[in-house]
Amino acid sequence: MPDLETLVPLSQQIEILLESGKNQEAVQFFLELQVPDQAEVFNLLNEQAQEKLLVKLDIPATADLFDELEDSETLEAADSIPLDRLADILDEMEPDEAADLLGDLPPELASQALEEMDDPEDVLPLLGFADQTAGGRMTTSFLALRRQTRADKALEFLREVGPDGDVPYYLFVVDREKRLSGVVGLRELVLAEPVEMMENIMNSDVIFVTTETDQEEAARTMARYNLGALPVVNDRRELVGVITGDDLVDVIDEEATEDIYRLSNVSDAELEPESAVWLQIKGRLPWLYLSALTALFAAWIISRFEHIIAQVAVLAVFQSLVAGLGGNAVTQNMAMVVRGLALGKIPANRAWPIIFRQAVIGLLLGIAVGGVVGLGAYFWRGNAALGLVLGLALVGNMVVAGLAGTLIPLGLRALGQDPALASAVLVTTATDSMGFLLFLSLAAAFINYL
Amino acid sequence: MPDLETLVPLSQQIEILLESGKNQEAVQFFLELQVPDQAEVFNLLNEQAQEKLLVKLDIPATADLFDELEDSETLEAADSIPLDRLADILDEMEPDEAADLLGDLPPELASQALEEMDDPEDVLPLLGFADQTAGGRMTTSFLALRRQTRADKALEFLREVGPDGDVPYYLFVVDREKRLSGVVGLRELVLAEPVEMMENIMNSDVIFVTTETDQEEAARTMARYNLGALPVVNDRRELVGVITGDDLVDVIDEEATEDIYRLSNVSDAELEPESAVWLQIKGRLPWLYLSALTALFAAWIISRFEHIIAQVAVLAVFQSLVAGLGGNAVTQNMAMVVRGLALGKIPANRAWPIIFRQAVIGLLLGIAVGGVVGLGAYFWRGNAALGLVLGLALVGNMVVAGLAGTLIPLGLRALGQDPALASAVLVTTATDSMGFLLFLSLAAAFINYL
Repeated sequence: MPDLETLVPLSQQIEILLESGKNQEAVQFFLELQVPDQAEVFNLLNEQAQEKLLVKLDIPATADLFDELEDSETLEAADSIPLDRLADILDEMEPDEAADLLGDLPPELASQALEEMDDPEDVLPLLGFADQTAGGRMTTSFLALRRQTRADKALEFLREVGPDGDVPYYLFVVDREKRLSGVVGLRELVLAEPVEMMENIMNSDVIFVTTETDQEEAARTMARYNLGALPVVNDRRELVGVITGDDLVDVIDEEATEDIYRLSNVSDAELEPESAVWLQIKGRLPWLYLSALTALFAAWIISRFEHIIAQVAVLAVFQSLVAGLGGNAVTQNMAMVVRGLALGKIPANRAWPIIFRQAVIGLLLGIAVGGVVGLGAYFWRGNAALGLVLGLALVGNMVVAGLAGTLIPLGLRALGQDPALASAVLVTTATDSMGFLLFLSLAAAFINYL
Repeated sequence: MPDLETLVPLSQQIEILLESGKNQEAVQFFLELQVPDQAEVFNLLNEQAQEKLLVKLDIPATADLFDELEDSETLEAADSIPLDRLADILDEMEPDEAADLLGDLPPELASQALEEMDDPEDVLPLLGFADQTAGGRMTTSFLALRRQTRADKALEFLREVGPDGDVPYYLFVVDREKRLSGVVGLRELVLAEPVEMMENIMNSDVIFVTTETDQEEAARTMARYNLGALPVVNDRRELVGVITGDDLVDVIDEEATEDIYRLSNVSDAELEPESAVWLQIKGRLPWLYLSALTALFAAWIISRFEHIIAQVAVLAVFQSLVAGLGGNAVTQNMAMVVRGLALGKIPANRAWPIIFRQAVIGLLLGIAVGGVVGLGAYFWRGNAALGLVLGLALVGNMVVAGLAGTLIPLGLRALGQDPALASAVLVTTATDSMGFLLFLSLAAAFINYL
């Protein structure tokens, strides 16, 4: 596969061709690439080159490119295209991708484009579904066969519609009321006797989701049962769409990014390092303010002990160590629990044993870390009481970390919320505060020996 | 799809049946489930129930179950099975899964099992490949056709080997020297004229990887080009294996877990909240020790300013806030850069513009956060110099965070290392230390006004 590094010189070459007016050569060069590579190269082009290229590409090639680009990139590219051309492109795009683009366009422009389209019927039913549901992900271009269709007739039908190569590997079987009744793989069809009817060769134990199913659950269903295509039904069990394999990895990547970003306090999962500056600030600043607020609470706890610190300034040296190690431990905990929940590995009836286990692990980690660090501080400062206070505070804070890092995400799940919402800022600041409180209270108790 | 919650009562029912000696009923009940659900239920059973069930399941059913279980779970389940039975099960398993299990068994047991197997030829060539390579992921059970084979003969051949339903949707075409020359989809085969030869209907622009290719690159290739199966060749371009769709999501999940865990300083990507206590401690404690070491460095920096803190104890209140907010900002940065790299969105020639952009964003975030927090501190403590010192330190530390959180992962990538190795502990501790240094140096400079 040509990786990103080899595509960079290709994009530069195309830019040079376009700048020197060799548009036809540039287009030819571009179209020789596979469509996924076209999309990468397109993203690497500067804005002028992108616009020039879009003018020169024909409608089907532009539609293929738009199908492949990410939603925000398609929206940006569509910006420079006149309305009637845009409508033609929308007609050629995959219905689910066209619906996504229409949903992202300004409402007035979207309704004008819909009016201009020759063939809006495939797209219209998709516009009503929320982005992150199976309805929002599915395509309406699928092939359905009737229960009584014979294998040879089915193959004949496929040969008729097939010249464009878009015959799917899974065919769905519906009854007279368009209700989903089974699935036939192309291989079962090929291996079947010609006179056999669909209802006899289909697998009627067909796995499906509804239009309202969350996209992550739909993707996990496809992955779990190793399905190349997943049928989507409405509330009358009528087959209304199919989620195809290309969506599977997109959804799983999206959800992993969402979890990583939430754990790291970035609130917009579409942000990338090169996103617009103000978008990045919008996605990060609120969390930093929230973090500052909770840190002020921690600072207030410390300020309650100012008189102790004024007496024994060395406490200021070690308070951050207790808080920091607690923060690290709770981050480890959160990562394991949030990921375990995302991959569906933690059934609700296992919550309490897990919380207990994590508290025990926190205790053991606290003894291991607190022992070593306490001894280290004792040797460094020659003060046994300081070592003891530090060690005990670390033991306590590690137990707190084990409990908070497990209880909070599991609790959020039990409340039907996203467990990753228990984002690092909040949980670590909680552990920080607890760390300061433990360490400084212990120090206050032992103040005469410090 | 039956989710984890609905499978819990099923597993309890099976446990009850097994305890009351109704083994046949338990097995029947278990086998009515789809194999992926069998694996989930099996994991929910207690150890005795698992062992009882394994004794009662026949060889093919056990092999299917083992194919579906995760590697560590298969290893555990295999533990209670006598050698000759284990060899029969290995014969029935998918070659790639059997090779994984053999690789995980104690070497002596593995070689005994290999000797006992009737059919070790499929598995043997797989044993030499590293786990995380395409060679370690591929299966040797695939169908290859010759260039001169006619479409009707190919279909006939499929019907002969097909009754077990294991005909793949993609067929690979090889030349006389077994070198990969093309790919034919089952649909192209079905749509082709009967007399057409493979070399005329195949797509010779076939995408492949080598046995040494990293599994993540292989998975990304499959995802990018939307391939249901990916051929793997050796250094003579001979077709030696195929990576199938079920591996795709496994690899992508694995790699996302690895990134999340590395960012959160958990070094073993197979850890789950219920893993054995000592395994969890082994995967977490080294990082906490490393973190303690770097925190001691930060503490040493603070200790250089002890005399200042003894004069103005309130500094101890705010130093942690500067460090903490810097740590939060750098975590946001790291998440975006590490994820961008994992998804292949950051070409090497964009590194410097991205570093510059992130420094600017750090500056703007610093002004926004430093301004508000500085003002807050001024009003709280009635001390303008304190507010100024705090605000300036925050501005500086946010710029440091923007630079460190971008430079370090990009630098690691440039050195051919895993960017997620720039794990939160190290980078945040660096930002912590920098935060203390900035804040306390500024405070020392303004000491007469504090």
